[in-house]
Amino acid sequence: MPIRGHGFRFCLFSWPFFFLCVSSLRSRLTHLSEIKSPQDIKNLSQKEVAELAAEIRKEIIDVVSKNGGHLSSNLGVVELAIALHRVFDSPKDAIIWDVSHQCYAHKLLTGRYEQFHTLRQSDGISGFTKQSESVHDFFDCGHSSTSISQALGLLTARKMQHIDGKVIAVIGDGAMTGGMAFEALSHAGILAKDLIVVLNDNQMSISWNTGTISRHISNLAMSARYQSFRYKFESGLEKIPGHLGESLEKFNYRFKRGLKGVFFSNNLFVDLGFEYVGPIDGHDCACLERVLKRVKKIRRPVVVHVVTKKGKGFEPAEKDPIKYHGIGPFNLEKALSPENKDEFSAKEPIVSEKPISFTESFSKSLIKVASKDEKVIAITAAMTKGTGLMPFMRAFPDRFYDVGIAEQHAVTFAGGLAVGGMKPVVAIYSTFMQRAFDQLVEDIALQNIPAIFVLDHSGPVEDDGETHQGIFDISMLRPVPNLSLLAPASSVELDLALNWAVEQKLPVVIRYPKAICPSELPEFSEPVQIGRGVLIHYAELKNDELGSLAFDKLEQDKIAQDKRAHDAVDTLFVCTGGIFPEVKDAVNILCNKDVRCDIYNLRFLKPLDKEYFLDVVKDYKYIMFVEDGIRIGGIGTYLESLLQRTYTGKFTAVCGFPNRFVSQGKREDILEKAHLSSSYLATKTLRLRSPGC
Amino acid sequence: MPIRGHGFRFCLFSWPFFFLCVSSLRSRLTHLSEIKSPQDIKNLSQKEVAELAAEIRKEIIDVVSKNGGHLSSNLGVVELAIALHRVFDSPKDAIIWDVSHQCYAHKLLTGRYEQFHTLRQSDGISGFTKQSESVHDFFDCGHSSTSISQALGLLTARKMQHIDGKVIAVIGDGAMTGGMAFEALSHAGILAKDLIVVLNDNQMSISWNTGTISRHISNLAMSARYQSFRYKFESGLEKIPGHLGESLEKFNYRFKRGLKGVFFSNNLFVDLGFEYVGPIDGHDCACLERVLKRVKKIRRPVVVHVVTKKGKGFEPAEKDPIKYHGIGPFNLEKALSPENKDEFSAKEPIVSEKPISFTESFSKSLIKVASKDEKVIAITAAMTKGTGLMPFMRAFPDRFYDVGIAEQHAVTFAGGLAVGGMKPVVAIYSTFMQRAFDQLVEDIALQNIPAIFVLDHSGPVEDDGETHQGIFDISMLRPVPNLSLLAPASSVELDLALNWAVEQKLPVVIRYPKAICPSELPEFSEPVQIGRGVLIHYAELKNDELGSLAFDKLEQDKIAQDKRAHDAVDTLFVCTGGIFPEVKDAVNILCNKDVRCDIYNLRFLKPLDKEYFLDVVKDYKYIMFVEDGIRIGGIGTYLESLLQRTYTGKFTAVCGFPNRFVSQGKREDILEKAHLSSSYLATKTLRLRSPGC
Repeated sequence: MPIRGHGFRFCLFSWPFFFLCVSSLRSRLTHLSEIKSPQDIKNLSQKEVAELAAEIRKEIIDVVSKNGGHLSSNLGVVELAIALHRVFDSPKDAIIWDVSHQCYAHKLLTGRYEQFHTLRQSDGISGFTKQSESVHDFFDCGHSSTSISQALGLLTARKMQHIDGKVIAVIGDGAMTGGMAFEALSHAGILAKDLIVVLNDNQMSISWNTGTISRHISNLAMSARYQSFRYKFESGLEKIPGHLGESLEKFNYRFKRGLKGVFFSNNLFVDLGFEYVGPIDGHDCACLERVLKRVKKIRRPVVVHVVTKKGKGFEPAEKDPIKYHGIGPFNLEKALSPENKDEFSAKEPIVSEKPISFTESFSKSLIKVASKDEKVIAITAAMTKGTGLMPFMRAFPDRFYDVGIAEQHAVTFAGGLAVGGMKPVVAIYSTFMQRAFDQLVEDIALQNIPAIFVLDHSGPVEDDGETHQGIFDISMLRPVPNLSLLAPASSVELDLALNWAVEQKLPVVIRYPKAICPSELPEFSEPVQIGRGVLIHYAELKNDELGSLAFDKLEQDKIAQDKRAHDAVDTLFVCTGGIFPEVKDAVNILCNKDVRCDIYNLRFLKPLDKEYFLDVVKDYKYIMFVEDGIRIGGIGTYLESLLQRTYTGKFTAVCGFPNRFVSQGKREDILEKAHLSSSYLATKTLRLRSPGC
Repeated sequence: MPIRGHGFRFCLFSWPFFFLCVSSLRSRLTHLSEIKSPQDIKNLSQKEVAELAAEIRKEIIDVVSKNGGHLSSNLGVVELAIALHRVFDSPKDAIIWDVSHQCYAHKLLTGRYEQFHTLRQSDGISGFTKQSESVHDFFDCGHSSTSISQALGLLTARKMQHIDGKVIAVIGDGAMTGGMAFEALSHAGILAKDLIVVLNDNQMSISWNTGTISRHISNLAMSARYQSFRYKFESGLEKIPGHLGESLEKFNYRFKRGLKGVFFSNNLFVDLGFEYVGPIDGHDCACLERVLKRVKKIRRPVVVHVVTKKGKGFEPAEKDPIKYHGIGPFNLEKALSPENKDEFSAKEPIVSEKPISFTESFSKSLIKVASKDEKVIAITAAMTKGTGLMPFMRAFPDRFYDVGIAEQHAVTFAGGLAVGGMKPVVAIYSTFMQRAFDQLVEDIALQNIPAIFVLDHSGPVEDDGETHQGIFDISMLRPVPNLSLLAPASSVELDLALNWAVEQKLPVVIRYPKAICPSELPEFSEPVQIGRGVLIHYAELKNDELGSLAFDKLEQDKIAQDKRAHDAVDTLFVCTGGIFPEVKDAVNILCNKDVRCDIYNLRFLKPLDKEYFLDVVKDYKYIMFVEDGIRIGGIGTYLESLLQRTYTGKFTAVCGFPNRFVSQGKREDILEKAHLSSSYLATKTLRLRSPGC
């Protein structure tokens, strides 16, 4: 591993703020490379454990700076992962990581060090736990708040089969705001004996938690100073004689709790039937181990409250954990050099003027819209930065709500706001909107409530893998009555769509990809007409392509010729906005093979002006439908079925995501694997035109 | 209203167990008919209020016994509804009823007495709150646990527009187990000032609540005997001097809470930032009003804990609230006569041997399957009776889990069980599975977990209206990779499907309607072949139709002729199992018009053996696709698009639910409105065959 070694040494000399023990460099590398299974860390001394922790941090920082990934959360749980694997015996004891983007240390401790440099890369190891990778990964997780349900199921199954072992759910304070975590806690409190819930409290979910659950957890954490006193106090209370008859017993119990209440905060988890232990310093490995060993013996459901620091051990991440929550590859040297510190600790990513991403475009448009209309309110569910709402939050703090990891509440809350006369704009990633499907149907669409939903991260999503692809929204939302669904292809179209949406008296969803906006075309600026898209002719496409090239007379003549020859264009691409760049490239490839195509950018995936569509397609013989969502239930098969019923003898093909989950990779990799790359689209078009080929 | 009056008098003499004051009969009728708005009840004396309550109960029992409806829950909140409308000023103060199937008294108090006899009937008033019916109905609700989010949204919108008024969410203890209620509580605790959450604690959701949240609420309710003492105690505590500096202040607060803790239970709601008031007897109108008046003045979010009795005032419902939760029309005299008491208080509906419903068929099949395989576990989310799991629960109590109104947890819990080696079968109504869409995708399908999901109430659902139609499941689930989706047409097919599902190493969903199973056909018994349906020829259909008729030589000859003439059959219906009866009837109508049709009962909506399908349809010229789900994203357009790509010149039509919400009615009404009745299917077929007609 020369590159990894080089990176490591390089980092060493350029990390003035990173506290590590230089003298034990060799032994540290040795630790990590010697771990084939968690058994290999059981006999380490606490000194060696500290070395191992430093080594894990180095490895994580090194790989994430190259591949991108979740940095802050993973640096925060290094000691916790070590302590869990030293005290418990995985996989006999099952450790389940909620959301699982904090599983990097767990992966390194369970024999995946050699593959770790392939983290999040195409065909590399996943940034989340994955059953297929290791017996120590029990579930594939990427959405929040599921671990307690999973742990409870696994535990129940084991109990029924008389299989021993503890099940440990490690869940963040952010994930704890998700409703299903409470459904599970409530069920678990009455059912589970060997369940341990480790509440990893880094006092922050992806952005910041709002709400009293977070406040409650944070209050608990602040009571740390009482902790040692509390243990003594409680063990004193335990000595008060017990068996005094049922009635006195109850009073005795209440008396003890009452006395505790004088000194300690109320506790949600105790109300829900759990023993509560904590708060514990999550970076004190010896203390963690001591507590976990004691907890291991308790035959009741327990919440162990561990306080950790996001980004621990890497100063830029400690200072700005949001920036380093999920991050692309970054320049480690620059991040650490003193002169660049300010830049890197900025709360916001550095936004260059162009090229602009869809997220940035939405961010700007929304502020413009909200400046004109004071009824516009923005809501998100712990995705303030990811959806580009930071500038809105700063500009209109009273009109911004981050409800925590609670998509269901976010949507229905917006319904309430709209019924009350406001214009809520809810910005959530496409894949996370799946959590609020029922609320969109019942609490929004059924009542035709004029709320706006913005699905960032629609279509292919780089790096994060299966759980984050935004490929189900079209098929999920098109069947919902009253809902309009728009898929702008450019920054200008997104702005038009948002402005149109705010004027409507019905719910509107706007979807766009995690991608840079393509360069504008004149058609993108055409006014929004309900149900209609824009037709982009071959000649204009050529024009756009040549825009930046030397533009001589010859070319101009060629374009004029092309315009005249437009009647000869017999092939039309019909596409969603998010996949327009690939379609445009395919048209250019085909052009080089003397096949001329036009593009119909649908804009509206619902409603559809069917007559207009049929009029648009009537002059083409070959129709290629392309969408950046799953093919089944998508717009392509729907329009294709429409053509079937017109009996006009068109030749058609539908290109969309195939019916399987799509693993991690760059946009190009993902689209290549899904047969949605421009070259594949071109090939498929040629095949449609000459079936024999 | 002669009928209503008659019913009323009739009930009077046949209700020996119903406590009512006969002397004030006239005045009671007068009360109800005089109420045009809630203003009309403000000045009633407590004696008149009691009369009004009795009158409302009579009206509800009378109408529900005729039309069916939610009886138990509505009888439980009569006094609560009166007290709320006397203390608060609707619509200035907004009262939001969670799930809203307990809104009957609210409807009667807000000017809908004259229309109340049309409850749940086609074009009548809804069994749920409905914006279009009244300014006093703020939301259309039919799914649980949304009221706090809605209330919070409405309140926030009003605050931003400087509109005064309280917002009151009335939520049951069952609905409180739903995760999104907690998401909203957490958000509300930090945000809302004028929010009142009335916890309507009838100690039972649809079936029984499991879990510690219910236990916690129930423990709170049991502390009623402390109540009066508590108020005195607390007001005494209030007198302890306050302003002692911040540090002492905190200690003082904790000291007070500690002292309270000696006598009173811990309180979840206080942890979540609410004031807690209660428990209060929900049938003592004077006390309710007193407390609500006090609460009205508090400028903090408050939980008012009200204990009510489901079915209050109607002995059969008090004794068996589950049976009378949602009930069809019933014989009031029989329900009340002493000799029928035992029969009617039975925990289970009286099941005659035939005709059997799909629910009963599943119930029996599952017990058979579970008897053979001890790894089979049943899970539901507060739908034990509705999904036919009562017999299973009694037969295998250790293998049955009702997780409360917590569909998300139910699905992911099943995932955990399956990973642990069990075979979970999750039974949930189609419409409520929308709540767990994300969990089905991420926690089941992504990991290809072999769990079984049974969607009862798929397709048209009688009486309950828009929120309960099971029409989105096909379009929601077909795009999900790895998932198999089956739609059996009969009891035997359902049994085959379940037995097939248990053998699979992948997730399987089985959907069927809330309906009586049609009579069996030999094809329904054919073994399950993955992706394939069964073809039912015209001749066999005729045979089945004639089964119960006199069957003479002449008919036999005719059938033989039909068989020979099969080549002449040029029309094929392709249908989902749930709509088979209507398709069969359509075929018979067409037969009388000399158009002979075959039926391809798909069985599998996913995966599809496309080659087999194309082979089946190759000999037909006209293909009618019929499905009992929404047309957009359905199976019909998908298969139609497949035919488009084969360029075989078929003539096709797709019949499914149109893209709008479908209001209440009987199955026939719903299908008629959706253009899915047998006569419409026949007409559409004729039109397909002769486009000019």
